[in-house]
Amino acid sequence: MIKPRTAPGTLELLPLDQIAFQGMLDTIRRSYERFGFLPVETPVMELSEVLLTKTGGETERQVYFLQSTGALQAAEPGATPELALRFDLTVPLARYVAEHEHKLAFPFRRYQIQRVYRGERAQRGRFREFYQCDVDIIGKDALSIRYDAELPAVINAVFSELEVGEFTVHLNNRKLMRGFLEGLGLDDPEQQTLVLREVDKLDKRGAEAVGETLTGEGFAMDGAAVDRLLGFVQVRSSGYDNALARLEALGQGNEVFNQGLSELREVLGLLKDFGVPEQRYCLNLSIARGLDYYTGTVFETILNDYPQIGSVCSGGRYENLAGHYTKSKLPGVGISIGATRLYWQLREAGLISTAESSVEVMVAQLDEARLPKYLALAQQLRAAGINTEVQLEAKKLGKQLQHADRAGIRFVVMLGEDEEARDVVSVKDMRKQEQFEVARAELASTLRVEIEQSRAMGSSAIGSGNEVSA
Amino acid sequence: MIKPRTAPGTLELLPLDQIAFQGMLDTIRRSYERFGFLPVETPVMELSEVLLTKTGGETERQVYFLQSTGALQAAEPGATPELALRFDLTVPLARYVAEHEHKLAFPFRRYQIQRVYRGERAQRGRFREFYQCDVDIIGKDALSIRYDAELPAVINAVFSELEVGEFTVHLNNRKLMRGFLEGLGLDDPEQQTLVLREVDKLDKRGAEAVGETLTGEGFAMDGAAVDRLLGFVQVRSSGYDNALARLEALGQGNEVFNQGLSELREVLGLLKDFGVPEQRYCLNLSIARGLDYYTGTVFETILNDYPQIGSVCSGGRYENLAGHYTKSKLPGVGISIGATRLYWQLREAGLISTAESSVEVMVAQLDEARLPKYLALAQQLRAAGINTEVQLEAKKLGKQLQHADRAGIRFVVMLGEDEEARDVVSVKDMRKQEQFEVARAELASTLRVEIEQSRAMGSSAIGSGNEVSA
Repeated sequence: MIKPRTAPGTLELLPLDQIAFQGMLDTIRRSYERFGFLPVETPVMELSEVLLTKTGGETERQVYFLQSTGALQAAEPGATPELALRFDLTVPLARYVAEHEHKLAFPFRRYQIQRVYRGERAQRGRFREFYQCDVDIIGKDALSIRYDAELPAVINAVFSELEVGEFTVHLNNRKLMRGFLEGLGLDDPEQQTLVLREVDKLDKRGAEAVGETLTGEGFAMDGAAVDRLLGFVQVRSSGYDNALARLEALGQGNEVFNQGLSELREVLGLLKDFGVPEQRYCLNLSIARGLDYYTGTVFETILNDYPQIGSVCSGGRYENLAGHYTKSKLPGVGISIGATRLYWQLREAGLISTAESSVEVMVAQLDEARLPKYLALAQQLRAAGINTEVQLEAKKLGKQLQHADRAGIRFVVMLGEDEEARDVVSVKDMRKQEQFEVARAELASTLRVEIEQSRAMGSSAIGSGNEVSA
Repeated sequence: MIKPRTAPGTLELLPLDQIAFQGMLDTIRRSYERFGFLPVETPVMELSEVLLTKTGGETERQVYFLQSTGALQAAEPGATPELALRFDLTVPLARYVAEHEHKLAFPFRRYQIQRVYRGERAQRGRFREFYQCDVDIIGKDALSIRYDAELPAVINAVFSELEVGEFTVHLNNRKLMRGFLEGLGLDDPEQQTLVLREVDKLDKRGAEAVGETLTGEGFAMDGAAVDRLLGFVQVRSSGYDNALARLEALGQGNEVFNQGLSELREVLGLLKDFGVPEQRYCLNLSIARGLDYYTGTVFETILNDYPQIGSVCSGGRYENLAGHYTKSKLPGVGISIGATRLYWQLREAGLISTAESSVEVMVAQLDEARLPKYLALAQQLRAAGINTEVQLEAKKLGKQLQHADRAGIRFVVMLGEDEEARDVVSVKDMRKQEQFEVARAELASTLRVEIEQSRAMGSSAIGSGNEVSA
């Protein structure tokens, strides 16, 4: 006998939790489609040669390699296996766009909701398998900065629909940051990266400690420069006018700084037209993100009441998506939601709970001889779009009601001798603990109305409404 | 520069094909939910020890093993890696039910739509990564035979909704088959398996050749017995009464034969109550399927006009799901659709084509200064549930229309100086090649009606209706 257990670092859900999670993915997908993004799915495995174009780095150390039984037996020690699992959706996107370039219409707007794999150290809340939900807009040769302003609108739509409380999109621009550092005399990109990595620890270590590190032996930065830097990265805005004023207050800098400034202004100016409310975004000049990758606008999204969760949706602008695979220049802008981690953290925070069952009705079996009638009732309900289970085993009614209760099924439909004589059915509402009768011909429409009403009355996309406390 | 390419044995789709495929998966999912099945997803990787409980066999030779960079470096030659990818959804289901047994309500009805992995030899139409769409009903200790009759109803619902032409569920019962072979003096289960494997070649090799093999050296079966066997496995029925008559004509046999007979009769008798039309099922006494696994009812599903595709949905009854993981007896019945292969074969057969885009409207950019108005129109459309893309780059209108055409977007919305003065917008219907004007306030509702109508008018679940030729 082997102990049944899942591999460490994976999240497997019981059915009612799976329904809640699936509701979250469906909401994200619907919002992405609303904005005109097209679905793409790529194979979970890529050729290692294609996947691992960038040598070294943290990512490569976490890759999962794949070998069939035959390949495993024939493998030479130390050789890189031919196949590996994707560790994000960005490299597969780059490969996809380069491979199918001549069959795609640009700007190419794609969404992709799939799992990715990382050989993370096992740790609570860290996953080796997790869903990412990405959208990207890819241009051919060029892509208007206006698309940068569209993504906060997508974030606004998604997180409003997820009903997880108030949230804020934090905006920055890597050019502004780079220009600022150059203004401090930090011209070397590698040195910039190291400094930004220290600055990133601001929230954890505090300004003083970071300042000490930067003026200390390793960096030996000028004290006044460090003060200016710490002042810069602590800029936050509140509302549109305030954001513009904060940018104004930064003054002018070198060319790249001024370009970043003008891009941020243009993005801010468009957010209103895109319908993003003022309280849903702010400047946050400390955001660096993916230091080697992003080149312009960068985003993070914070849940106002749960800042400790960190960013729940991040992304930004990049200059060239697929330089390893094609000579075409493919600039783009995108965002990503780590849905498994988000779900897990919202559940930990008590923000989402188990959903009601996707099974809406159970037809009970009161009397074996009436089974054909129960099956006919179920067909009637299903034809009306109601998810229906029939009890096919002859069991005591108490047991059957217990099953419905345990399984989270709201309505139990009962038809006995008495009901049949009067051409009605009895319906037990397990949630309200009420029982009522309805004419047989009106069963489906009556339940349809009940179900629609309870959906409209604040069932959230994830879990049921009354369980969302935000 | 590295050549961008997918791993062999995987199916990657362009967006409009992905929409068609996704429509197929959505239809299957919706049908499964309608019958009260609950969603389950399991991690793609399982612990090898858990996954590979049955030693040897074809399956194990096709397993993909998984190793992180660290595990790969530390691996001892010849050792089995700790993790492997699932090769079906049945073993993960067994593990899931055994692991979560005390938190599940029985009979446990689950559906699972995920990809599985097999290290198949590379060959056209064979996939190393493919979707399976499974439903199973698992009982605790016992499960009524009635559930066996529910699954043809599920198949009937799914394939009716997929709109891939007429189809037939072929029914058999392993007990009937076993009893029949025992009646011929074949008592040894291994010998039975070998004989059935030969019988399975009937369609390919013909009755004469199979007969010769069975009477020949290896099997040395009696000529009369072989004739009886070949007569038995060629039994097919047409309609309910005919099916009963064919069973009647078989006469009586040993206990297990008679049990199979009575189970088949009960299943046939219930199909009517489950609403399965007579022309949608038949007896086919040659079906053996998963010789080591199924113990009672077995199903296959054939597309009437495309029998060469083989079974598009198969399954059956098994005595005990999770004997490797738990002492609980868990009998069940289930079916599986290999969706990737099905999609690929339907496309090869010309039964499905590229779908219309999920993007329903493109708002053109006639005039940069009106961008805020275009964005407002898009918000209005999205709020009405219409998937909308806005052209944010300033390009010539011709280019923009070309983009919509190439991307398969049906409606292009245009607002210029003239339209604005009259408070209307122009709409170009790319499919009908017509242009019309509509009052701005009525844009969303007008397009909503157009879209609903064209959906109702025979857009199939997969691809658009007029492209389905069946």
